[in-house]
Amino acid sequence: MKDELRQLLETCIETGSKEDLEALSFMIEGVQRKINRKNSTYIDGLLHMEKKLDNHSCEITIPLNSAIHNNLNIVHGGITATVLDTAMGTLANYLLPEGYGAVTNQLNIHYTAPGIGDQLRCRAEIVHQGTKTFVISGEAYRSDGKKVAYASGTFFIIKK
Amino acid sequence: MKDELRQLLETCIETGSKEDLEALSFMIEGVQRKINRKNSTYIDGLLHMEKKLDNHSCEITIPLNSAIHNNLNIVHGGITATVLDTAMGTLANYLLPEGYGAVTNQLNIHYTAPGIGDQLRCRAEIVHQGTKTFVISGEAYRSDGKKVAYASGTFFIIKK
Amino acid sequence: MKDELRQLLETCIETGSKEDLEALSFMIEGVQRKINRKNSTYIDGLLHMEKKLDNHSCEITIPLNSAIHNNLNIVHGGITATVLDTAMGTLANYLLPEGYGAVTNQLNIHYTAPGIGDQLRCRAEIVHQGTKTFVISGEAYRSDGKKVAYASGTFFIIKK
Amino acid sequence: MKDELRQLLETCIETGSKEDLEALSFMIEGVQRKINRKNSTYIDGLLHMEKKLDNHSCEITIPLNSAIHNNLNIVHGGITATVLDTAMGTLANYLLPEGYGAVTNQLNIHYTAPGIGDQLRCRAEIVHQGTKTFVISGEAYRSDGKKVAYASGTFFIIKK
Repeated sequence: MKDELRQLLETCIETGSKEDLEALSFMIEGVQRKINRKNSTYIDGLLHMEKKLDNHSCEITIPLNSAIHNNLNIVHGGITATVLDTAMGTLANYLLPEGYGAVTNQLNIHYTAPGIGDQLRCRAEIVHQGTKTFVISGEAYRSDGKKVAYASGTFFIIKK
Repeated sequence: MKDELRQLLETCIETGSKEDLEALSFMIEGVQRKINRKNSTYIDGLLHMEKKLDNHSCEITIPLNSAIHNNLNIVHGGITATVLDTAMGTLANYLLPEGYGAVTNQLNIHYTAPGIGDQLRCRAEIVHQGTKTFVISGEAYRSDGKKVAYASGTFFIIKK
Repeated sequence: MKDELRQLLETCIETGSKEDLEALSFMIEGVQRKINRKNSTYIDGLLHMEKKLDNHSCEITIPLNSAIHNNLNIVHGGITATVLDTAMGTLANYLLPEGYGAVTNQLNIHYTAPGIGDQLRCRAEIVHQGTKTFVISGEAYRSDGKKVAYASGTFFIIKK
Repeated sequence: MKDELRQLLETCIETGSKEDLEALSFMIEGVQRKINRKNSTYIDGLLHMEKKLDNHSCEITIPLNSAIHNNLNIVHGGITATVLDTAMGTLANYLLPEGYGAVTNQLNIHYTAPGIGDQLRCRAEIVHQGTKTFVISGEAYRSDGKKVAYASGTFFIIKK
């Protein structure tokens, strides 16, 4: 496994462009964040998520670069969705007692501006907290303050 | 850059678990897919997307593993959203004449079952094709045939 | 009550235009449909709903006229939503055993063309039937066959 | 037309229950609101909408009664959708210059509590105002202050 990994990296280094190697570096650093427990999942690590959390909101910021772009060289809408969903789900889980978890049942996103610039900041807030579900809203902003996306979601409360 | 990459990998190899190294291998292979032009973006490569496309539908299949899991050890809903959005957007772009592109304006996803098993298959179909927008539906299935998610989205037609 | 109703009608007759009286006639006929049990609720009656229902779909057709228009003289999007939601909910309730009911938890509608012409036909189909929820899709068509709207919704199964 | 209307009313009066006549009265009063220009459309009149509007929000309140109930004797979700959509669309139209209008392109509603009590209050606010679209959010509340629904919608700006 280890030698295969080294060999795999060498092949990329030989054949990849500068941009490819930067993407590679970004991703390996992402896995390292998971190894170092800076992030709790590979995806959170891969996206270099920084979280702030309190009883009313969850805010996640990620750096932007070509590793998470779509064909039009802006942030892939699925990545914005991933960060919004993570912020919303993290907030729901934070508010639940031990032994309970929240899973996304429905997610709705309006995209309002291209995701460009240095970073993306996503902020989730509670719209409704019931006994079986949460409804949570989320907003995503670029470095220049422009709103990139607006989301709402239904989260089911489950026993773990 | 190259030596830093090698050093970064060595640190991961030293400190990472077997699962960490597998995730790492999966991701470096993903970048390699972009380098080899098997996929057109890093995200498509990272998720090891395999696409089938015709005038009526676009189907994308990805392998599942812990690298794309959420905290509950099932596929992160944002990853399902990413593959669905990619399938829907790829279909819209395929149907447009040269010089035009389609961007996601609104995305709506109902999650219907946990994303487990070997792979995820997403299929997009046209609901409505207008002069300014597409409405496209998408469905995601697990290896055992169970429907994992159902999506619909509005795509804006833009001049590139 | 009865004399007040008669007086109310006379005031409308004196002051209303031909269009006003047609709207009035349409609405009183709607209440009559409820009285005669042709429809089970006032709203169903008011909209003159005609339903067809089997194990796989529910289809509801309504006549169109200025009584249900918005400011732009096309069918109010809320009316289209009402008919779609009714078709979807009727189908869900039809598939449930005695003692159980389905309530709308989330409704998502894409409007694809102006609602004009003689009538609106809405058709609901099951996307997913689980133990706690249904996901149901719906489509609305005009007399000329053009698709007016595309909907999906989550319905919760409750004990009545 | 006039005599037919009178005859139609008499038939309802003879055969209808007290609840039927109350629904009838509510609806004829609704048409009267349109005749008297208290409301600008039959639907607004029928629902007895009262609007408050400024540059930041539009609030619409309607009285609740069995005339707008569903089979479960709570407000029909389509009626809530209609009032929310009207509040959102009214706000968008208010903010546009002469000669332009806003039409609903996508509407998404989360239902969070049964619509019971004396009245329903819907409030719309701007999420995003662009050159081609608005994204607007809406919330619906019962008399006891409980949130009944949470909505978001995309509105297209058109030349009238």
